[in-house]
Amino acid sequence: MGYGTVGSGVVEVIENHKEVIKKRTDGDILEVSHILDLRDFPGDSHEALFTKDFNDILNDPEVKVVAETMGGVNPAFDFTMKLLKAGKSVVTSNKELVAQKGLELLKTAKECGVNYLFEASVGGGIPIIRPMDQCLAANNIEGVAGILNGTTNFILTKMIEEGMEFSDALKLAQDNGYAEKDPTADIEGFDACRKVCILASLAFGKHVYPNQVETEGISNITLEDVSYIASVKGVIKLLGQIKYLSDDAIAAFVSPAVVFSGSQLASVNDVFNAILVRGDAVGDVCFYGPGAGKLPTASAVVADMVDAAKHTQRRKIFGWDAGSEDYVVDYKKTIRMPFYVRAKATEAEIKCIFGDVKFLTRYGKPADEVAFITDEMLENTLNEKLEGVKVINTIKVTNY
Amino acid sequence: MGYGTVGSGVVEVIENHKEVIKKRTDGDILEVSHILDLRDFPGDSHEALFTKDFNDILNDPEVKVVAETMGGVNPAFDFTMKLLKAGKSVVTSNKELVAQKGLELLKTAKECGVNYLFEASVGGGIPIIRPMDQCLAANNIEGVAGILNGTTNFILTKMIEEGMEFSDALKLAQDNGYAEKDPTADIEGFDACRKVCILASLAFGKHVYPNQVETEGISNITLEDVSYIASVKGVIKLLGQIKYLSDDAIAAFVSPAVVFSGSQLASVNDVFNAILVRGDAVGDVCFYGPGAGKLPTASAVVADMVDAAKHTQRRKIFGWDAGSEDYVVDYKKTIRMPFYVRAKATEAEIKCIFGDVKFLTRYGKPADEVAFITDEMLENTLNEKLEGVKVINTIKVTNY
Repeated sequence: MGYGTVGSGVVEVIENHKEVIKKRTDGDILEVSHILDLRDFPGDSHEALFTKDFNDILNDPEVKVVAETMGGVNPAFDFTMKLLKAGKSVVTSNKELVAQKGLELLKTAKECGVNYLFEASVGGGIPIIRPMDQCLAANNIEGVAGILNGTTNFILTKMIEEGMEFSDALKLAQDNGYAEKDPTADIEGFDACRKVCILASLAFGKHVYPNQVETEGISNITLEDVSYIASVKGVIKLLGQIKYLSDDAIAAFVSPAVVFSGSQLASVNDVFNAILVRGDAVGDVCFYGPGAGKLPTASAVVADMVDAAKHTQRRKIFGWDAGSEDYVVDYKKTIRMPFYVRAKATEAEIKCIFGDVKFLTRYGKPADEVAFITDEMLENTLNEKLEGVKVINTIKVTNY
Repeated sequence: MGYGTVGSGVVEVIENHKEVIKKRTDGDILEVSHILDLRDFPGDSHEALFTKDFNDILNDPEVKVVAETMGGVNPAFDFTMKLLKAGKSVVTSNKELVAQKGLELLKTAKECGVNYLFEASVGGGIPIIRPMDQCLAANNIEGVAGILNGTTNFILTKMIEEGMEFSDALKLAQDNGYAEKDPTADIEGFDACRKVCILASLAFGKHVYPNQVETEGISNITLEDVSYIASVKGVIKLLGQIKYLSDDAIAAFVSPAVVFSGSQLASVNDVFNAILVRGDAVGDVCFYGPGAGKLPTASAVVADMVDAAKHTQRRKIFGWDAGSEDYVVDYKKTIRMPFYVRAKATEAEIKCIFGDVKFLTRYGKPADEVAFITDEMLENTLNEKLEGVKVINTIKVTNY
């Protein structure tokens, strides 16, 4: 359902991997029987399979597994619910739908004894859901941090490595097809936010909704910030961060963050994504790969389809419970971390407020500007301390 | 079975993760009933559980899952066979055993309807077997490359980042407990070779034995090589590489290799490991984490135990077939790649043989020494070309 970039990739991957799929399903094959899309695709070699009527799929008893690659909550939610209730497994790359409605959809799948799988909705082609499942079996997960959006990572990489201005890097991303004409969902962190919701729900077992995750994008990042942070071997990345506090409380937020070289996240460049999981026994493990793109994402969808086809019985409890409204706490009051601060001030003024902090420098630094990295503190404390200071920018510093 | 570093870690992880494990098994718990070791552990809080008699485990009908962390082929092979035949699942961190006897053990497990799981035998705590399984479902795997040995990676990191001599770095690794008194298995690549065998068997479905994998260690690497390669933003890593040629032929080898910055493998430092999988649809995905260590490895063993406990029926076909003797081909005749060469020669002499190659430099380079990177060619061709040249060292250049 949905013959856009990912959907057409799904058909392509199925057709080009018949042998592989046959091997994995002990001889069965996946056969594409319908393609639902409201648009026309004249000349497409699958013309005979197209339909504009969802009921053609819903009412076909031969259809066992459906890939939903439409995006958006409606009508994908309604379609998926009906399919699950009709005893068909559904796999999806639709992060918006899983983040908003995953709880209900997984509950319905469980009740109906079918599978609802969504590996492709987080990290595109990177296998993350099964490895996280594995980590979870013998670890208390302490936190998760991820570079979850390829567009913003591409823009930041161009700013960091080539000194390109934000607006030029955005234009290049658009010219390359990495960013949409309206890039808001990427640039402002909304896309990363949805993925954080899914990761947090998986990792800690309670549904997290996008409106619970404070989200800040990268449009305030300047080359001056990049330059100051480079002077201490750091890079700015758009990170989704999730921290365990108790079984009833987590912190989850999306924001630019300073990552120092030596971190596995620091070397994740261009449109690549990476997800780091910190467990109490295993330490840090990190999964890296293409976070988007037609064939990578499609291959994750098809892997889920194969999994669903192999397990006509419900495969696994990839599910979670409802959280409470105060389950995601205000990280500003609970999570201590260092901050990068850039301001119009003198070093003496800053020392007076923050003590002996580390001052940064850059080529062409004006005499009346300072940049520094604070000790660990709550963001609320930082903001109190900065009252009356002419702040230009502040950026969180991560310990991943 | 085996109360060494990993085995005692397994007991610790089970005891410290009762709640997590209970959640994952829907209410069951893992209870340690026996600990087999020929040594005495006076004062250990589990004293009542120790036995020196394997039959105490074999004949206990309450024992459903056994962790084998003894290492070595004997008596681990004999014990594991007997346990599988007695209907008990076995999980292991023993790479030597899986590399040498995996085919028979997996076959026996299948016949007996039990599980033989070995996630901890490759990459310590890094989840790799399930993610690779996932990649395999909708990709043709083109190749796998891994930094699979923490000890050698630690030594190379010290040489690269701190200019430490090989022998000093080895001593430091020994002092830190990263290297054994007899470091041969690590330094000469035998440990990495076993892991390559397991990865190759998994990825391409036919058993590969250690004697089929040409293996070269790091003891010939000098600071001069490190320095030349740093001049072109490269680092030397000990890599295990596996390349798909056809369903009946692969190449597999362990050797030092030049990795250029930008590769996700280049930033894997110290005792960390990483495994990169290249699929035709997904592209490159990479899994990073602690490749050894008590608790990371133990957490992978325990995750497998949980998996085995959840699936009293045989869980999955984590198996492979027998290969033929010529299944692993001579990579020197089949795989083209560039090479780093260091020799006593003049640039003119080299140009005469290799054409317009890229010459490298280093601080203190003697006038009669050259270092360069060739075009892609077979290693056999390289060796023919270098006949009569006073070669100091050659190192493969990887395209991962």
